[in-house]
Amino acid sequence: MPRFTDLRTRDVRFPTSRELDGSDAMNPEPDYSAAYVVIGTDAGDGLEGHGFAFTTGRGNDIQTEAIRALNPWIAGRDVDDVLTHLGDIGRELQRDSQLRWLGPEKGVIHMAVSAVLNALWDLRAKREGKPLWKVLSDMTPDEIVDIVDFRHISDALSADEALSILQAARPTRGEREARLLEQGYPAYTTTPGWLGYSDEKLARLSREAVADGFDLIKLKVGGSLEDDVRRMGVAREAVGEDVKIAIDANQRWDVPEAVWWVNKLGEYHPYWIEEPTSPDDVLGHAVVRRDVAPIKVATGEHAQNRVIFKQLLQAQAIDVVQIDACRVGGVNENVAIVLLAAKFGVPVCPHAGGVGLCELVRHLSMFDYVAVSGSWEDRRIEYVDHLHEHFLDPALVEGGRYVTPTMPGYSSQMREESLARYAYPEGAAWADENAAQEASH
Amino acid sequence: MPRFTDLRTRDVRFPTSRELDGSDAMNPEPDYSAAYVVIGTDAGDGLEGHGFAFTTGRGNDIQTEAIRALNPWIAGRDVDDVLTHLGDIGRELQRDSQLRWLGPEKGVIHMAVSAVLNALWDLRAKREGKPLWKVLSDMTPDEIVDIVDFRHISDALSADEALSILQAARPTRGEREARLLEQGYPAYTTTPGWLGYSDEKLARLSREAVADGFDLIKLKVGGSLEDDVRRMGVAREAVGEDVKIAIDANQRWDVPEAVWWVNKLGEYHPYWIEEPTSPDDVLGHAVVRRDVAPIKVATGEHAQNRVIFKQLLQAQAIDVVQIDACRVGGVNENVAIVLLAAKFGVPVCPHAGGVGLCELVRHLSMFDYVAVSGSWEDRRIEYVDHLHEHFLDPALVEGGRYVTPTMPGYSSQMREESLARYAYPEGAAWADENAAQEASH
Repeated sequence: MPRFTDLRTRDVRFPTSRELDGSDAMNPEPDYSAAYVVIGTDAGDGLEGHGFAFTTGRGNDIQTEAIRALNPWIAGRDVDDVLTHLGDIGRELQRDSQLRWLGPEKGVIHMAVSAVLNALWDLRAKREGKPLWKVLSDMTPDEIVDIVDFRHISDALSADEALSILQAARPTRGEREARLLEQGYPAYTTTPGWLGYSDEKLARLSREAVADGFDLIKLKVGGSLEDDVRRMGVAREAVGEDVKIAIDANQRWDVPEAVWWVNKLGEYHPYWIEEPTSPDDVLGHAVVRRDVAPIKVATGEHAQNRVIFKQLLQAQAIDVVQIDACRVGGVNENVAIVLLAAKFGVPVCPHAGGVGLCELVRHLSMFDYVAVSGSWEDRRIEYVDHLHEHFLDPALVEGGRYVTPTMPGYSSQMREESLARYAYPEGAAWADENAAQEASH
Repeated sequence: MPRFTDLRTRDVRFPTSRELDGSDAMNPEPDYSAAYVVIGTDAGDGLEGHGFAFTTGRGNDIQTEAIRALNPWIAGRDVDDVLTHLGDIGRELQRDSQLRWLGPEKGVIHMAVSAVLNALWDLRAKREGKPLWKVLSDMTPDEIVDIVDFRHISDALSADEALSILQAARPTRGEREARLLEQGYPAYTTTPGWLGYSDEKLARLSREAVADGFDLIKLKVGGSLEDDVRRMGVAREAVGEDVKIAIDANQRWDVPEAVWWVNKLGEYHPYWIEEPTSPDDVLGHAVVRRDVAPIKVATGEHAQNRVIFKQLLQAQAIDVVQIDACRVGGVNENVAIVLLAAKFGVPVCPHAGGVGLCELVRHLSMFDYVAVSGSWEDRRIEYVDHLHEHFLDPALVEGGRYVTPTMPGYSSQMREESLARYAYPEGAAWADENAAQEASH
C-alpha cells in the first residue's frame, strides 16, 4: 500500500523584470516565480505530482513556506485512498481549523492549498496515463460533483443543479473530445500589449499576432489616459477593424474613474475591460458593467475563491469569468467555478501567462468544453509566449488555437535543469545576476 | 537623525486548546497565537514599537515570516519622517508591486502589514507620551484623512466626506474625552458562551456576567440546532429578559441554512447573529439580514479589508460593523472603516478576544467616540477574559465598561517573560507540553 513521502518544495524565480515583460499598471516590475512542490510516494513507480503557486517575486519564500505547512496533511497517507477522494482532501486542506484563520480560503494559505491539490491531480493523471482534461472528462457526473465544495455557494448552485448540468453534457462528450483533439481550443494573446513596450513594438507584435491567427489581442491600460488613447489607436490601426482588442487595467481604478476612463476609449471599441477595479469589489464591477455597456467586463485572476465568483455572477457584474489555475483552491475549486459559470450562462476565458499558467488552464477550459458548458463560443484561453521552455509539456498555440495536450498529467512539471538554474537565490541565473549587480556598484 | 533598525519577530503561541477556551463551530481547538514584531530605532531613547498579527496556532510561523518580509520597507529609514507620515507608509506597504500579488490586501500578507503598522503607531504614541486613542483624537481632521487609503472606496466615501464627518465632531471632542476618562466605554462579554462549555458552566458564567455589569452576552452557535436551542434557553433563563444575548455562528452556515437556523432560535430573541455565513459573502449577508429581521446581523472579524466593509454597508447587509485590530491593514485601514461606518450610520462594535485584541480595539472605539461618530449608543466592545496578564497595559473592564487606558502607546506590548515562556516551539510552556506528550506515549 504506497504512501506519500514528505513534500519537497523549491523557491523558483525568473528575472523577468529585466525586460519589462509582464509590466502593467499595478505590477511594473514582476519577477515571475513559482512556489513549487513535488509530491512523491514510496510506490517505486517513478511517478511524482508537481504543482506550484504563481507569484511575482518577493514573497515567493513565504508562499513556499505555506505549502510546506501542509505537509502533515499529506505525508504518510495512503496514496490510492487520497487520489480517489480528491474532493475529501480538498475540503480537509481548506478546513484545517487553525490554518484557515490565515485566510480563510484566500491569499497565501489558499494558494498553498491550490499548489498541493494541483500536484495531487497531476499525480493522479500520470497514474491514469491521461492528460488532466481527459481524466476530468472521463469522470461520471457524480464523481465530478464530489470534487466540489458546495459550502457557501449552495444558494447559487446546488449539488443537484451541478449534476443536471453535467448530465446534460454527457451524451455528447465524445463528439467534442474528437473535435478538441483535431482543432484545439481558441486562444487570445497578451503578448503585444504590455505597458512597458514602445509604440513600435506594440504595432509590430500586434501585426504578428494577427498573422499568427489570433482574432483577439489584449492591451494593458491604466497608466495614463493620453498614452492609452494613443496606444489603442496604434493597435487598432495595426490589427484592423475585424480583430477584437481587449483592455486590462489590473485593478488600477476606482469605480467612477473606471467608467470614465473606459468610455474615453470607446471610439476604439474595446471588446472587454478586464479588472477595472478591486478584485474584491463585486458591487463595483456591477456598476462598471452597467455603465460601460456594450463593452464587456471581465475579471477573475485575483478573485480569491468561489464565493467571490458566485457573487460576481449573482450580481450580473461580469460578462467573462477569468479563472486562474493557481489562486483559488486548485482543480477542485476551479471545477466549482466552471459549474457556477455554466449555471449562469457566462463564458469562462481563463487568465494565463505568468509562469506555467498557460500550461495548466488549457486543461480546465478543455474539460469545460467537453463535459460542462459544451461550447467554445465566446471563449478563449489567454496566451503569453513567456517561459514555456521550462516545462516538460509546454503550451503550444498554432493558428490562434491551443493544441490539445496528450501527455499524462497536469502539464505542471518543470524541467529539472530549469528548477536548478532559477532556484532562488542560489541558482546560477541569480548568482550571475547578483554578481553582475555587485560588479556594477 | 534616528533610523529604524531591523525588525525583530517572534512566534508566540498559547496552548489554549487544552481548556477549549475559544472553541466555536469553525475553530474547535485554537491555540491563540501572536506573530509578534518589535520595531526599534538607533535613537537611544529606549522606545520601541510593538505589534502583532493574531492567529490560532498552526501557520503562526508563516505569518511571522511574512512580517519579516516587510523589513526592507522599514529598516534604515528616518524615524521622524516615517512616523509623521504613517498614511504614506501604509500605502507603500500595501502597494509593494511584488508582495501585493500574495493578497492583494488580504490574508497573510495583509495581516503582516497590519502588524507592522500597528507597531509603528505604538512607537509614535509612546514618543508622544499618549495612549493611541488620544493620539488619533488629537489629530486634525486633515491629518486623519491623510491616514486613509481611499483607493477602491472613494465611490462610497470621498476624502471630502470623511473630512466633513471629522469636522462635525471636532468642536465637541473635549466633552466626550472627559466623559470617556470618567466612565469608560461600553463592553459586552463572550466569556460564558464558548461551544465547548457545559450547560452548567454556561449558566454560571452568564449569571456572573450580569452580576459584573454586562448587559449583553454572546453565545457561540452552529454546532447542532438541538444544542443551540437548549443552550439559548439556559442562557436566557440565567440572564433574564432584560439582558441582550448575541449569537455567533463563525461562518458555519450557507445562506438558506442561516436564515432557517436563526429563525428557529427566534423565540429567545437573539440580539444579533454574527458571521452567519462566509465573511466574503456580501450579497449573502444582505439576504440573511432581510430574512431574519428584526434580529440584527453583525460581521467583520474576518472581513479582509475596507473594500469588503464598503460593500457590506452599500448593500445594507449588516447592522453592526465588527472591526478587528489585526486582520485589516492596521490602524490606518481601521480608521477608514470607522469613517465608512459613520458615513452609513452603522455602529462599530469591535471584535476582540484572542490574544491582545481587547487591548488594541478599545483605542479604536474610543477614537470613534471622541472624533468620528461621537456616540456610544448601540456600541460595545467585545470582552473575553483571556490572556490579558501577558500585556504591559492589559485591558480592564469594570462594571461592564472598558476602563479608558492612559499608558502611552497602543497597549500592544507583551511582557518579556511571556514572550520568552510562550515562544514556539522553544519556550518553557511548549517544552513542558512536548515533554508531557512524549512521556504519555
